Amino acid sequence: MKALEEKILAEGEVLPGNILKVGSFLNHQIDVDFVMEMGREIARLFDGAGVNKVLTIETSGIAVAMAAAAALHVPMVFAKKHQTGNLSGGLYTAVVHSYTHGTDYHVVVSRDYLRPQDRLLLVDDFLANGRALEGLLSIAEQAGASVAGAACAIEKGFQHGGDALRQKGLRVESLAIVESMSENGLTFRRQ
Amino acid sequence: MKALEEKILAEGEVLPGNILKVGSFLNHQIDVDFVMEMGREIARLFDGAGVNKVLTIETSGIAVAMAAAAALHVPMVFAKKHQTGNLSGGLYTAVVHSYTHGTDYHVVVSRDYLRPQDRLLLVDDFLANGRALEGLLSIAEQAGASVAGAACAIEKGFQHGGDALRQKGLRVESLAIVESMSENGLTFRRQ
Repeated sequence: MKALEEKILAEGEVLPGNILKVGSFLNHQIDVDFVMEMGREIARLFDGAGVNKVLTIETSGIAVAMAAAAALHVPMVFAKKHQTGNLSGGLYTAVVHSYTHGTDYHVVVSRDYLRPQDRLLLVDDFLANGRALEGLLSIAEQAGASVAGAACAIEKGFQHGGDALRQKGLRVESLAIVESMSENGLTFRRQ
Repeated sequence: MKALEEKILAEGEVLPGNILKVGSFLNHQIDVDFVMEMGREIARLFDGAGVNKVLTIETSGIAVAMAAAAALHVPMVFAKKHQTGNLSGGLYTAVVHSYTHGTDYHVVVSRDYLRPQDRLLLVDDFLANGRALEGLLSIAEQAGASVAGAACAIEKGFQHGGDALRQKGLRVESLAIVESMSENGLTFRRQ
């Protein structure tokens, strides 16, 4: 998505530790009109794939997932990072390693909201080593749901999580794939 | 909003501790088409109020805030519950007491995303004792931004946080106000 590459070049900041800061439009301040456009692009890519539900992880996946679900006119479920008192009944759980924070965390989804007949689109803001998507795939498998694919806003191609998932047969669509980045600039993979 | 009252009656569950569980459509699974409709209703209520940005708190405020911002065609900022390595530069901070979890937590907003010229609409999924909105009001004040008002999906009228904020002069619009609730049923305040 050319407009996203241009937005990253205009507003993104490369920070130490391979962090691409896009807080001005994607995960702290949200450029909602733009993210809704990203959602329409994701819906276009997965048109006809039979998706009936979008699955993401809190927090920063929610905006993109919401936009994709709005364009697909399907509900969205987000995996929660902590078990709260509000989650009654059984839970699907997975452990995810956070690249940004260097820690493991648990994510949970209530069994009430994923069913074997669901056909899921996994959505997240970033795809780096793929750990978050692997957690969502595990949850989908526990639910017996099928997975139409995964859609991410920004993939860090140089961390190869997306390529590994594609090699396993998962359809992965990223709206922009950063092939290299440093304080001197960014390059994108041609798609 | 009559449709929201009907949805709460049909899908909401009253749990011990005055918890109203609406995880089937508002804060775990999101009925996105419905929440987008709620966003359009919020935009209608604040039409002409000069709102140029929506401010909410992660996590469960994000979906409603996103929907309101999409209908208003303005950006949205969410206060984060933990300081992360991705937040560079100065921060506005506030302490919020969580009614659901019985704990205090810090919320932060980067100074990059709130300016004195901003006119904010505060949005959240629930309004109970008003602590979350007070935290957002503090952050708005730190930024020198003006506040057009607050919009919540569901207000627990019997906890009186919304009334206290209205008495202080804040415009507070809730799409549904639960006046009483127990395992035997719910009643709504007429608006």
